[in-house]
Amino acid sequence: MKQMKDDYDKFHRKPLQVRSAQELLAPFGKPGLTERIPLQDSHGRYLAVPVHAPHPFPRFRRSGMDGYAIRSSDTEACGTEPVIWLNVIDEIPCGSVSDKPISAGTAARIMTGAQVPEGADAVVMLEMTELRETDGQTQVGLKRRIETGKNITPIGFEVQEGEVLLRPGRQIQAGEISVLASFGVHQVTVYRKPRIAIFSTGSELLTVDEPLQPGKIRNSNTYMLASQVRAAGGEPFILEAVMDDLSLAQSKVEEAMQEYDAVVTSGGVSVGDYDIMGDLVRSDHVDMLYNKIAMRPGSVTTAAVKDGKLLFALSGNPGACFVGFELFVRPFIQRTLGSDKPYLTEWTAVLDQDYTKVNAFTRYVRGRVEVRDGMVYAIPAKVDESSVMVTIKDSDCLIVIPPAKGVTPAGDKVKILLLKGSTL
Amino acid sequence: MKQMKDDYDKFHRKPLQVRSAQELLAPFGKPGLTERIPLQDSHGRYLAVPVHAPHPFPRFRRSGMDGYAIRSSDTEACGTEPVIWLNVIDEIPCGSVSDKPISAGTAARIMTGAQVPEGADAVVMLEMTELRETDGQTQVGLKRRIETGKNITPIGFEVQEGEVLLRPGRQIQAGEISVLASFGVHQVTVYRKPRIAIFSTGSELLTVDEPLQPGKIRNSNTYMLASQVRAAGGEPFILEAVMDDLSLAQSKVEEAMQEYDAVVTSGGVSVGDYDIMGDLVRSDHVDMLYNKIAMRPGSVTTAAVKDGKLLFALSGNPGACFVGFELFVRPFIQRTLGSDKPYLTEWTAVLDQDYTKVNAFTRYVRGRVEVRDGMVYAIPAKVDESSVMVTIKDSDCLIVIPPAKGVTPAGDKVKILLLKGSTL
Repeated sequence: MKQMKDDYDKFHRKPLQVRSAQELLAPFGKPGLTERIPLQDSHGRYLAVPVHAPHPFPRFRRSGMDGYAIRSSDTEACGTEPVIWLNVIDEIPCGSVSDKPISAGTAARIMTGAQVPEGADAVVMLEMTELRETDGQTQVGLKRRIETGKNITPIGFEVQEGEVLLRPGRQIQAGEISVLASFGVHQVTVYRKPRIAIFSTGSELLTVDEPLQPGKIRNSNTYMLASQVRAAGGEPFILEAVMDDLSLAQSKVEEAMQEYDAVVTSGGVSVGDYDIMGDLVRSDHVDMLYNKIAMRPGSVTTAAVKDGKLLFALSGNPGACFVGFELFVRPFIQRTLGSDKPYLTEWTAVLDQDYTKVNAFTRYVRGRVEVRDGMVYAIPAKVDESSVMVTIKDSDCLIVIPPAKGVTPAGDKVKILLLKGSTL
Repeated sequence: MKQMKDDYDKFHRKPLQVRSAQELLAPFGKPGLTERIPLQDSHGRYLAVPVHAPHPFPRFRRSGMDGYAIRSSDTEACGTEPVIWLNVIDEIPCGSVSDKPISAGTAARIMTGAQVPEGADAVVMLEMTELRETDGQTQVGLKRRIETGKNITPIGFEVQEGEVLLRPGRQIQAGEISVLASFGVHQVTVYRKPRIAIFSTGSELLTVDEPLQPGKIRNSNTYMLASQVRAAGGEPFILEAVMDDLSLAQSKVEEAMQEYDAVVTSGGVSVGDYDIMGDLVRSDHVDMLYNKIAMRPGSVTTAAVKDGKLLFALSGNPGACFVGFELFVRPFIQRTLGSDKPYLTEWTAVLDQDYTKVNAFTRYVRGRVEVRDGMVYAIPAKVDESSVMVTIKDSDCLIVIPPAKGVTPAGDKVKILLLKGSTL
């Protein structure tokens, strides 16, 4: 009964606030290596260099309408004469450039998006015109005055040459791709996905495809963590489980810390006897950053560092493991991708139901977000804390319940952290 | 000047409301083919079959604490005697099954998550106990009464055997993976990603890696659409641009409609002369569903069907193209993935700034979501409507502005549609 003599130390860990732990970790997350990839493969990746506009946009005076390019001065007589007639001297589809400048008394048929010809200073909508043929000459008739510049987008109206279009750390989605393609950026420099090693610990765990055995449960945390790593922008590597042998665990974890950008483990940090990760971080093989956080679930969440690489030793409880990842590992991954907003988005919401659990630590309660008539409500998951079978999948936020001596009543304003990679 | 004779027809299209167009399209989006993939590759995919619990969870009476498994009746004397001493007869780590039943006067050291031994009906927390050795026998001392069932999670507490865990159409994320792994589902049946062909039209377009040419702009829509297809759950295939030759366009598009699950084009639907897609859907090669929607931007958004396959002919204007995809194509893709919520999430929000544009059609204005003190605000993008260079990438919602004769003032409640794949 070896554990008993260690129990005192294990119980008397010094709890750190979540924010303090995040601040301890922050210096270890630095933008990582980069790679160049084709634009069409860049969806979801993170830009590693700023992108400047190589030319103004639009590059030419662009027609905003289907209609006729004219000189606005020709319409000054509108109002005194019923219709002004202009000779149509050209037709300019998109992508064509007219070599016929517009002089007084002339016009050119022009399409939306086409380059406005020399001499013209306005485009009149097709719907506001009429047509006639006079001696084989097509003429367009106008009835109203048109001001100069009408329906012409000037050069550089949307973007000036040299302007910063996108900053490093920006995730590439449809809007970013539209910008990059518009400026001919067909190869983009992105951050390499950080490679995150994942271990489970504990001989009680069956792999997902082993037959069931009495008393044992399946290892679900490594697969869940792999999914969280992907959602955060990293590349997961599920390694073999670490069994309850300290020296073997040490060598496996240290090897992984050398090879990967960070190591995440689940389990082995509780005050039970086989807290192999707890023993490891208390050894002199690594420098412990913290081994207790003032939060529920997951107060045993632990972190250590060796040669500048992080080891995140998360709780084996699936709910605590999930929360520990989102609060501590995800920000690390986001930082290696250049993000300047590494933490989950925080909103204020109205608590929808009484929250009755009492705790000296801040609780991160899984819950759902609902918006009713413009107001954000947070609905805590109703089941027992350890019942994560249902609540992780059905949660889209963590509700932050500060240390409370009594009920936190429905209607109270609470902080919530958005889950599921929401970038809102 | 061929276009002029067609202009009347093109101007006098019958506009359909967005909702009516969505209803016309709905019957063509049906759950598609399925495939079986390993659990670890399933992140982001959509489940194609219901998953039932093959066994209750927990499968055994589970200890919720590190401590001692006891008979609660043994603690009845607490209060009359200062300490009750029980003989510790076993130590049960996680994953082990004890063969020593707990009888009166005995206890077993047990770890969180381990199977509670026969005879025991409660677990007392380690922190509430003391230890002593008496004649070589370890004894645990208790000072307080413990009620029956304390710190034991009963069989099936979280999930009953046979319970539906996950329904088809559910996107697999961390929480779903946790559930699947816990029940040993190592191969999952998911919907195949629908294969979406993407064409651009118009000879004015340069590919992203061509040198610039006067009057021409780059094709950015196909890359943007490919990113939108991926975000919606589909697999994009960028095909060669369709030039301004109707019979060639017909054969290319029809071929793609046979080979892929749907075809999306951008451009060629305006009232300009080379509206090749407009001509195609008016031909008898396909059945037109609609060619005008009562919305801005993108009123020329068009759809047709042939042999049960959809052709989405979106506007060539990048902003209109983006919105057309989100309103019409995304729901189709989501339906083929079994989703019962194929449309963008709709919230009510407070308009943060006056919206001054007047229009007979409903506007879908790109904007940002902000939550302040629990209230959702929608901030319309401030630039000219066609300036999508900035606004698509900086938008996380579409603000729905109904047809208005005047200003929609700040403070008004408006509907917003969440973008960027938000599942909130």
